[in-house]
Order: sequence, then structure tokens, then C-alpha cells
Amino acid sequence: MFLRARPVEFEALKPIVVLNKDDAEDIGVKALDRVELFFNKVRLTAIVNISQRMIPMGEVGLYSSVQERLKANFGDKIRVIASETPESLLFIRKKMRGKILTNKEIHKIIEDVVEQTLSAVEITSFVISLYNHEMTTGEVAALSMAMATTGRTLRLKNRVIFDKHSIGGVPGDKTSMLLVPTVAAAGLTIPKTSSRSITSPAGTADRVECLCPVDLKMNEIRRVVEKTNGCMVWGGGVDLAPADDIFIQIEYPLSIDPMLLPSVMSKKKAVNADYIVIDIPTGRAVKIKSIEEAQSLGHRFIDLGKRLGMTVECVSTFGEQPIGYGIGPALEAREALQIAQTGRGPEDIIEKVTHLSSVLLDFKNIKNSKQKALDMIRNGKTWKKMKQIIAAQGGDPDIKPEDIELGGKIISIKSSVSGKVFWVNNNSIAQIAKVAGAPKDKGAGILLHKKLNDKVRRGETLFEIFADKRYKLNRALRLSKELNIMGVGKDYEMVLAEIPEEEEQKYFILER
Amino acid sequence: MFLRARPVEFEALKPIVVLNKDDAEDIGVKALDRVELFFNKVRLTAIVNISQRMIPMGEVGLYSSVQERLKANFGDKIRVIASETPESLLFIRKKMRGKILTNKEIHKIIEDVVEQTLSAVEITSFVISLYNHEMTTGEVAALSMAMATTGRTLRLKNRVIFDKHSIGGVPGDKTSMLLVPTVAAAGLTIPKTSSRSITSPAGTADRVECLCPVDLKMNEIRRVVEKTNGCMVWGGGVDLAPADDIFIQIEYPLSIDPMLLPSVMSKKKAVNADYIVIDIPTGRAVKIKSIEEAQSLGHRFIDLGKRLGMTVECVSTFGEQPIGYGIGPALEAREALQIAQTGRGPEDIIEKVTHLSSVLLDFKNIKNSKQKALDMIRNGKTWKKMKQIIAAQGGDPDIKPEDIELGGKIISIKSSVSGKVFWVNNNSIAQIAKVAGAPKDKGAGILLHKKLNDKVRRGETLFEIFADKRYKLNRALRLSKELNIMGVGKDYEMVLAEIPEEEEQKYFILER
Repeated sequence: MFLRARPVEFEALKPIVVLNKDDAEDIGVKALDRVELFFNKVRLTAIVNISQRMIPMGEVGLYSSVQERLKANFGDKIRVIASETPESLLFIRKKMRGKILTNKEIHKIIEDVVEQTLSAVEITSFVISLYNHEMTTGEVAALSMAMATTGRTLRLKNRVIFDKHSIGGVPGDKTSMLLVPTVAAAGLTIPKTSSRSITSPAGTADRVECLCPVDLKMNEIRRVVEKTNGCMVWGGGVDLAPADDIFIQIEYPLSIDPMLLPSVMSKKKAVNADYIVIDIPTGRAVKIKSIEEAQSLGHRFIDLGKRLGMTVECVSTFGEQPIGYGIGPALEAREALQIAQTGRGPEDIIEKVTHLSSVLLDFKNIKNSKQKALDMIRNGKTWKKMKQIIAAQGGDPDIKPEDIELGGKIISIKSSVSGKVFWVNNNSIAQIAKVAGAPKDKGAGILLHKKLNDKVRRGETLFEIFADKRYKLNRALRLSKELNIMGVGKDYEMVLAEIPEEEEQKYFILER
Repeated sequence: MFLRARPVEFEALKPIVVLNKDDAEDIGVKALDRVELFFNKVRLTAIVNISQRMIPMGEVGLYSSVQERLKANFGDKIRVIASETPESLLFIRKKMRGKILTNKEIHKIIEDVVEQTLSAVEITSFVISLYNHEMTTGEVAALSMAMATTGRTLRLKNRVIFDKHSIGGVPGDKTSMLLVPTVAAAGLTIPKTSSRSITSPAGTADRVECLCPVDLKMNEIRRVVEKTNGCMVWGGGVDLAPADDIFIQIEYPLSIDPMLLPSVMSKKKAVNADYIVIDIPTGRAVKIKSIEEAQSLGHRFIDLGKRLGMTVECVSTFGEQPIGYGIGPALEAREALQIAQTGRGPEDIIEKVTHLSSVLLDFKNIKNSKQKALDMIRNGKTWKKMKQIIAAQGGDPDIKPEDIELGGKIISIKSSVSGKVFWVNNNSIAQIAKVAGAPKDKGAGILLHKKLNDKVRRGETLFEIFADKRYKLNRALRLSKELNIMGVGKDYEMVLAEIPEEEEQKYFILER
């Protein structure tokens, strides 16, 4: 059937056309079915929306992306016919029935996800099917490969590639900012790509952005790494594993994360990593609650690595409280910079950086690896390399911690009792930092004054909240009164919390 | 935050607003999150879309329905704040984890589905969770009730209400068109609401529409039933169980039907039915393949009826071939009208109508019920009642079969061999009738000349295809050459079909 084009000047990632109900019936399609469009030697598959009011009979409404791809103007005659059900949808239905998919089937699904020819209903049903039916390691490997190869990849000639990933959940984790220059200074190649925050107050990309640009093009990344052995860039800017970003938009509202393994590994495969250390923070208020869970997840990462030709080592790290003292992009960047410049800092950061670095150095058979990493932090080699990377990415290598601006609205939260810090709630801290404006307002966040096992006197500051805007500070302050942030008490106090009848999953951690 | 209104003149069932990315971050929401809008004393919850190009900072794009409800014009200052996660989403996540939901939780979900405050991703995840985790009878009952009470209901004073439903799948099933007047003529009240076709060549509403209007308002339906004891109207026109229509839009592209029971029973509850007969066609090319399956489904309907205060009887009927000879709205309406007027017709229709009618008459302890139903068809009482109903619904009671227009483009398909009809493929017949234009082109469809066990001579007509348009007839003809429609052969031929390695579910039946 031929229909006259009517541009509707509406944006969507997916190619969508709007048909009048009668025309749709004549063509034999319903809402969310697909049609083939033919115009000017271009053939395009689009998803059908139906509207009686907006589109008169005889016309087809073209979303902007469709109009651009067809190069059609108002009134142009477009041939519109019903599409066959896409193969990928048959495979999704197969997974819905709990069947195991072949590599080819998985690849086809991911291809169509990336090309935006599947509807939200169809992609959602795929994500939930993966959530409901456990995947085999073979399927996860195929999914990781498909997610990597449907995006761009980083190729560096004649280099063995090292990488690090944290599955996240611990606020204030600035480990990568110190690990990358340390490892690179030791001669290893580590092209670190990171994500921005999804549910946390800061992702590594948000932190590093306080020091230098992170939104680099692929050839710029290659240049930085060839020059300095490392980089600290935003992966989203170079279309690494783009399917993951689409899945995240579905996982986030549903608070599910069935793609954790393929998401991580596809991004590592996209940079052609050979050796990877994966940090699995373990604690009551992070994703992984126990060492047993961490071990089980770790084994899955290791197996998956083998299938994908990557050597993986996993480390379960203490995740019961934030790393260091600063939480929020600027506060974290300041803290990391200070440690790099002085060679000194909170013991937990130093310990985490040197241990995870040593795992990577061990892959290269470097002796005394942990001491060597510590030496490099102490003797300024880490700082020298960090300066090189900052400069190569287009930042100011002479940046000082005090150059990084913090939020101007500040309030101190003081303890009403004396005692010892028994527990710290990561989730509450993350929520308050976010309400204060992080990660969007880079200077917003929380600066801890006390951490686990610290002695506290009545009236002493427990932490400060930073914000750019007064109303956000007030909102954060209100929330800090509602939430339990730290438990301060005497040694013999045993009650942690009163537990309500059914506890809802209140905070969901989705990080990449 | 206050944002200036920018109407985007875009329709959607859901209340959607479009925010600039920066504003969304400031408000603290992501795509598919919800915001509360305040303007002119109206408060409205809307789903967030994000756009950088279409909506500049400081503005909020309002879809038509949102603009209308807020009565906001270009430039009006709308207060926009982040919404709490709706309770119903927490309950959906609970079902995703396989937990049993309470009546209250189910009601809240259905309420938000009907009020369009849940996104497609969220409703999809609910539908798939029901598909993955079997519901208890209690949950199905709660779902049926919630679906009924969130729509409009039909109340008829001092009447016991009888009803009939078929779970569908057999082409040409015009049983209801004859059963309703027969049962109504016997003095029972039967306010029959039907759906239009979803995947078939004709729904009962499509068939009846060839005789009289079916899109009646609630008070008109009440008037028709009070006058004639019966009606044959389209349920979609009066907002009966509107959640079902929303679920169908998700079930259809995914080819799943987890809502079969609550969908049927909610519509029966919405008309306050007391006694129901449910027809379960059983055969190789319908939904229910074996008598065992039919029994199991039947028991679930009966149990569910008990919970909902309705007495249900189920009948497994022969579903291996179409009912009667006509397939397609006009062809079926003609056939039904002819039977009513002459009191004579194909044995399978007469048998099905009288048996299902007798189940309803038995509920009222009418003796010799099947013979009584047959008598009414034979002696013209069924026809007299049908005329009354046609007239009451606004049609012409003097309509003759030949007044119902058939498609003008016709082709006969002849047999290339002599023998006997061994099997008839319902799916193939339905596909061809649809490609010929049914149900949209009311005159399109298939007229069978031969049915199961009929003797066929080489060159005899097996069936005719009717279409309004030449290109549709050609398309149907091409398809009829690809598909297996009838098996004609000798008694000793044993091979039904060669079975490929893996058979995909090619045709999905979704009927209500």
C-alpha cells in the first residue's frame, strides 16, 4: 500500500511510524507489529504505532529518525507493507519458554536490540526471561560476545591488555583512579573505561571528570594509551557494548540485574582485555552479602573469562562502609588526588589499591608485587603517571586538590551520644549524597569524619553534607534525619535494628 | 522545580511528559521514572521521557492527554517533582520474584494499569511474571475481580443472568449468534458481550455487526436486554474489564496468553453472570489439543467460578475443523441468518448450538432441554427472538441473507486428486481468510464446499475465497498454494505430514 508521508517531528531511538487504524488493518498490522517501508531505493523496518486522531487515512506519520533515513518529505508516497515476524522475536519467545539459545540466536537478538527494531515490550520480555531462567555459561559467553561485537572495539597492536572492574555498591570507591596510574607506571597497559553513575552518587567517569575530560573518541583513547600505557575514560562515549545501555533502561525501573556478568565481560572483551581483576565488594548493604555469594559469583566470572579467552581473578573486598572519607565526584577526586600527590592516605584505600594492583602485576610475574605497588604510590611514580594521563586526556596536569570545587552549602551532622561507630549504612549515605545533588552537581556529596570503630564524643561531627544549592542541602538534611546512617553506641549494645514484618527492597544497586 | 509548559501535540494513552536531560537530573528522575505535576490545583502523575533535542532546559513537554488534564498552555509554569515509586510497582517486583500476591496488591496493580500510570516495561514485566509463575486460584480470582471492578459493570434488577463463552480458535464459529436468541426465547436472560477478532478472521462482534449495530452504550444494552432478554453487543464499547485490552497489547506480540482465565471471568463478572457455559474447542489446530487438557482447564474455570460466586459448566467440543461452511464476518452472518430463518442447517452447528443451549436451560431445570432448544430453532422461535434483538439494537429485522454483501472478487480452489477429506487445517484457513481481508473487509473470507470425511472427485471445488479487493484475493491465492489446507486422499494413506527438525509456533491464537 502507498501512503503519503507526514513527518511528525518526534524523536525516538526506535524507528517508529504512525498509521491510521484503517490503513493498519488493510496492511494487516497491529500496534507494535512491524512494517517495511520503501522509498527512494531505501528499505527500512519500522515499528507500528496506531493513531486515529493524528494521522488521517492514506498517510503515514514518520518519526524524525525514519524521515531522516528515508529522506522523505511531506506528501511523498511511501510503500508500506507488513513485515514478517523478526527471527529475533522467535528466539526471545524460545527463551521465554526456558529453552537454551544458540550463539547465533543470541547474536541475532542483540543485533536487533542494538538496531532498535525490537519494541520495549519485546526487549523487556527478553530481560525478564533471563532473570527467570538461569543461563548456561555458554549462553552468557555468547551474550557477552554479541554485546561486544555489536558495538565498537578498541584494538591496540602488540600489547597485552590488563583491566580492572568493580561490581560496585560501595560509596566513595576511588580505587580505579589510583590503581590505573600505579599499574600503568609499572609498565602494564590498562585502557580503563568506566561508566557514569546509574544508582550511586558517583561513577568512576564522574570522578575522573573533575580532573580531565573523559568523553574521548576511540582514536583519542588509542593515542592516550599508546603514550601513557593507561587511560581513564567514559565507555559510554565510544559505543562500547551499546546493548547494555538499552538493557539498563529496562533493568533500572524493574530493579533487576540479570545482565551483570555479560555486561561486565562484554565491556572487557570490547577493549580486548587479556588479564582482568574483578573487585567484588561484600557486605550487608552492597549487592553481594556474604563471602559464599562472592565466591560463587567469582567462579562464574572466572569460567566465563575462560570461554572468552580472558584470564580473570576475583577479589572479595570489605564492603561494610565507604572507601576513604569523601563521597560524591569532587570530594572523591580531591581525595584521590591528595593521596597521589602526597603518597599518603586512608589505610583502606591504600590497602585496596595495592592489593588489586598486585593481582594485575602478578599476572606479569612481577615479584613482590604488593610492596612494589605501595612503593610507587609512596615514591611519586603513581602521581607522575596520573599527571601524564590527565594531560594526555586534555586536563591540567598541575591541578591541585583545592582547585576542585566543592559545594558551597555545607552542614555538619554531629553525634548526640558518645561511644563507638558500630556500623555504617552505605545505602543511606548514597541516598543522602544523591539528594544533595551528586553526581550531577559535582561538588555535592558527603565527607565522613568518622568511620567504623572510631571513638565518638557527644557533639563531635560524624559527617558533613555538601551541596551546590540550598534546597538540595535542606532536602538532604531532612533525609538524613529519616535514615539510619551510622550506629554509635557502647560495646555491649546488641540491637542493630528492629525488623518490620516484611522488608521491601528499598534501594537497588545497579552499577556497571 | 518550575518548568514552562510546551505542548508537544502527541497522543498516548499514558500520561507522558518530556524533560530535558539536565532538568531530569536536577529533579532526580530518569527515563520511565514518574513525576508529579502541579498546575491550577490539578495534581497529576506522569511518566518521564527524556529528550535533549526536542525540549530545551527549563521546559516540560506535555503530551496531549497531560495538557488537557492540566489545562496548561504554552509557557505556563508547571511545578514538577520526583514521584515516589508507585506501590503497584513494588507488588509487580514481588510477583517477579515468584511470591503470592494479596487481593489488595493485585487490585492496586490493576488499578494503576487501567489508570495508565505504569509504563510498558512495567506492565510487560507483570504479564511475563504471570506467564512464568503459576498463579494460585485465589490470585486468579482476585485478578478477575480487580479487572471487572476497575471497569464498568452491567446491573439488571431482579434477573438471574446466564452467559456463554468460547475460548475460541475454531474458524467460522457462529454458535453464539444462534444460542443467544434460542436461550432468550426460552425465557433466560443472556446479555452477551463479545469481542472483535484479535487473531481470527472474525469475532462474534464482527459477525453480528453484519446484522445490526454492536457498539451500544451501557443504558442502551440495558434497554435491549430488558426488552428482549438478550443482546449481542461488543464488550469493548462499554469499557468492560478495560485492563484486559491493555494486557492483550502485550500478550499479542509475545504470543503468550497467561490472562486467559481472569480475562474471561472478569468479563462475566462485569455483567454479573450467575450461570455460565464455557465452550472449550479441542483439536490439533486450536489452543487446547487434547481432552485431558480441556478437562484440566475446565476444572480451573469451575473452581474460579465458585470463588467468584458463579456456577460454571464447561464443554469440550470437536475443534478439528471450522463450524459450518462460512468463514469471515459476512459469510458467517449469512449462514447464521439462514439457519435461523429456515430452521435448518449444517448438523455440526445445530448440534453445537442445541447442546450448549441445553446446558444453560438445565441450570434452570428446564426438562428435555436439548430437544427444546432444537424445537425452537425448527419452529421459528429462535428466528423471532433474533429479529427482536436485531431491531432492538438498531438493525433491520427484515434483513435477508442475500442482503449481506459478500466480497465481489471470488476464486474457486479445486481438488487435483480424488478421495476423501482426511483433515482440515484451521490455522491455514484462518490465515488465508485474513489475508483475503477478513475481518476488516466484512465480505472477505472462505466458503468451504467440502468438510471432513466428504468424498471429493478430481476437479471438484474444495472451497472458494472471497475478497473485496483484487490484490488481496491474489495474496490469499498465493498463500493458499503455500499452506496445507485440506488433506484429500485414499483411506489407506497414513502420512499426515513430514515434520521438520524443530517446529516453530507459527500461528498464535489469542481470542477473548
